[in-house]
Amino acid sequence: MATAGKVIKCKAAVAWEAGKPLSIEEVEVAPPQAMEVRVKILYTALCHTDVYFWEAKGQTPVFPRILGHEAGGIVESVGEGVTELAPGDHVLPVFTGECKECDHCKSEESNMCDLLRINVDRGVMIGDGKSRFTIKGKPIFHFVGTSTFSEYTVIHVGCLAKINPEAPLDKVCILSCGFSTGFGATVNVAKPKKGQTVAIFGLGAVGLAAMEGARLSGASRIIGVDLSPAKFEQAKKFGCTDFVNPKDHSKPVHEVLIEMTNGGLDRAVECTGNINAMISCFECVHDGWGVAVLVGVPTKDDVFKTHPMNFLNEKTLKGTFFGNYKPRTDLPNVVELYMKKELELEKFITHSVPFSEINTAFDLMLKGESLRCVMRMDE
Amino acid sequence: MATAGKVIKCKAAVAWEAGKPLSIEEVEVAPPQAMEVRVKILYTALCHTDVYFWEAKGQTPVFPRILGHEAGGIVESVGEGVTELAPGDHVLPVFTGECKECDHCKSEESNMCDLLRINVDRGVMIGDGKSRFTIKGKPIFHFVGTSTFSEYTVIHVGCLAKINPEAPLDKVCILSCGFSTGFGATVNVAKPKKGQTVAIFGLGAVGLAAMEGARLSGASRIIGVDLSPAKFEQAKKFGCTDFVNPKDHSKPVHEVLIEMTNGGLDRAVECTGNINAMISCFECVHDGWGVAVLVGVPTKDDVFKTHPMNFLNEKTLKGTFFGNYKPRTDLPNVVELYMKKELELEKFITHSVPFSEINTAFDLMLKGESLRCVMRMDE
Repeated sequence: MATAGKVIKCKAAVAWEAGKPLSIEEVEVAPPQAMEVRVKILYTALCHTDVYFWEAKGQTPVFPRILGHEAGGIVESVGEGVTELAPGDHVLPVFTGECKECDHCKSEESNMCDLLRINVDRGVMIGDGKSRFTIKGKPIFHFVGTSTFSEYTVIHVGCLAKINPEAPLDKVCILSCGFSTGFGATVNVAKPKKGQTVAIFGLGAVGLAAMEGARLSGASRIIGVDLSPAKFEQAKKFGCTDFVNPKDHSKPVHEVLIEMTNGGLDRAVECTGNINAMISCFECVHDGWGVAVLVGVPTKDDVFKTHPMNFLNEKTLKGTFFGNYKPRTDLPNVVELYMKKELELEKFITHSVPFSEINTAFDLMLKGESLRCVMRMDE
Repeated sequence: MATAGKVIKCKAAVAWEAGKPLSIEEVEVAPPQAMEVRVKILYTALCHTDVYFWEAKGQTPVFPRILGHEAGGIVESVGEGVTELAPGDHVLPVFTGECKECDHCKSEESNMCDLLRINVDRGVMIGDGKSRFTIKGKPIFHFVGTSTFSEYTVIHVGCLAKINPEAPLDKVCILSCGFSTGFGATVNVAKPKKGQTVAIFGLGAVGLAAMEGARLSGASRIIGVDLSPAKFEQAKKFGCTDFVNPKDHSKPVHEVLIEMTNGGLDRAVECTGNINAMISCFECVHDGWGVAVLVGVPTKDDVFKTHPMNFLNEKTLKGTFFGNYKPRTDLPNVVELYMKKELELEKFITHSVPFSEINTAFDLMLKGESLRCVMRMDE
């Protein structure tokens, strides 16, 4: 393309400081360096994690920063050494990467790449420790290696999944993070068998994606657990058969669930980040075969506590990061599931706004009104 | 047999009270009732669990009682409804059963039979709530449904594995409990792949059986962890390549292990029952793919604590009961492994004494000198 090798000037939503509305600015995006790719973003969605690091409560504040990590785009140009991608390829950026060379990438069981594992505090490229974004020459920090709230962004080749160019980017963009995290937690980790019972703790986008995994696995009963009864109606669309609000019961919610299921759930997936939900998620599974999977991100002082007899009674406790998907290897296959109409991504996209209205997307999420709000970069 | 349907008088070792030497007595053994089998015990081994309930420290004292649960014998007669076993069959009694009808028995994943799961407090048969043992008409209590410290005993059919009659009962008798628990923990639950690293916490008979599982799985490195350096020499015979004594280090043992293995073990199996060992066993496994398996029985006030981030980092925590073996279905196959010379059971049988010297077996175990002491019932 004519822009290859040159600085591109384009629009980006810049977070100048914690919790203040983003500001659409003209930024300069430098050409990709070795092993980097410059991507034209067409659609980007807002995820809780963006909001979390924008609020920066208890997090290292890294500002000014371009947030954004759920997106779909097209390769504009590639840096030295990039052979797997070429201009025109359709890609999904992912906040965690796959170098294909470290012990984790070589292991069939792990997706926690040593080189490109998520790093929320780093605001620069790993190649040279510098940012590719500037405003009038002053650097603006990156976010989790993706920074998709920009018309153009620079991403390490290991953090880009090359997908079917026929896949509609305004839909599959949500596979970049939340959907895959929840869906993979169920289908790759909890692995319910047809006819089994599954509980999902937390009915946000990630929890509903975990529920979609339970529905597709043929679960006979899917119990949603959430503190907000309003979420039940929506969850029904995702296969939720029963709803339990812990506030409605005087006994611990895992006891309620065990009574409802004649001894416990076959599988349970926790998508809240709340330590009590994590413990209940484990306690509620059936002895002998129950599997509990933790997805939500805990705080640094949380302690998971349980009686060790639960393990001897053959309950399994696992967790997952990005649904155990290897981003480059596996995400193209998840896109194909959508293309085969097995995944109903449309249910998750409750809102769509022009990129210029990005602060509306933040408001919708803060009010709990949206699951996913997709932003159209060309508007 | 001529004895069928009649009371048999024979010798048994009776524990009259906690911690006092057993006394060889003449007992009356009633005929088997519905779904019960009377077995002539030929060999019985001593396991820590016998010692534990004989000492009855913190346990419900159930005396007078006939202990014993690792054994091999021959069916003498069967009660009403027993179709799977007939007089002359060779059997291994197991402290936990398999009814083949409950949810657990029907599940491929569980061996925790609802009907016949181990019950350490019950001293009677489940059919009629009575004992089959008497001395001069006064009932003597059973132990975990097996009571193999007797020339004849009565056992529920669901707690007997029918095995190859060519298998030497003086060797395969140790498959009844400890060996299978440890070996199964590794091969059925931790499932190390060829070339992986495995840590075993606790180098008693169960731990060494877990190690035997690691050796047979082709582990590249097997690290034994024990507070007693004397155990290392013996462990070498079971494939132990490295030995770590937590007392030799000022830092927590899991940190030592992580440093030794460039980030953590692929698999770890805990066979101590000590809560700190359980926690270290989990902490020491590698992120991304590590699996920790708990085997030792904790005390009732123990609390397993860890940071939930360990799960999100894709470590798995499991436990097992009797090595996840279904006693009737799976134990005959373990016997066949021995017959094919894949298992080296002889390494575990460090002592053998006549039944009349059963208190010597207790002494050897209390002094930590024996792994397994097999008692010959006919002497």
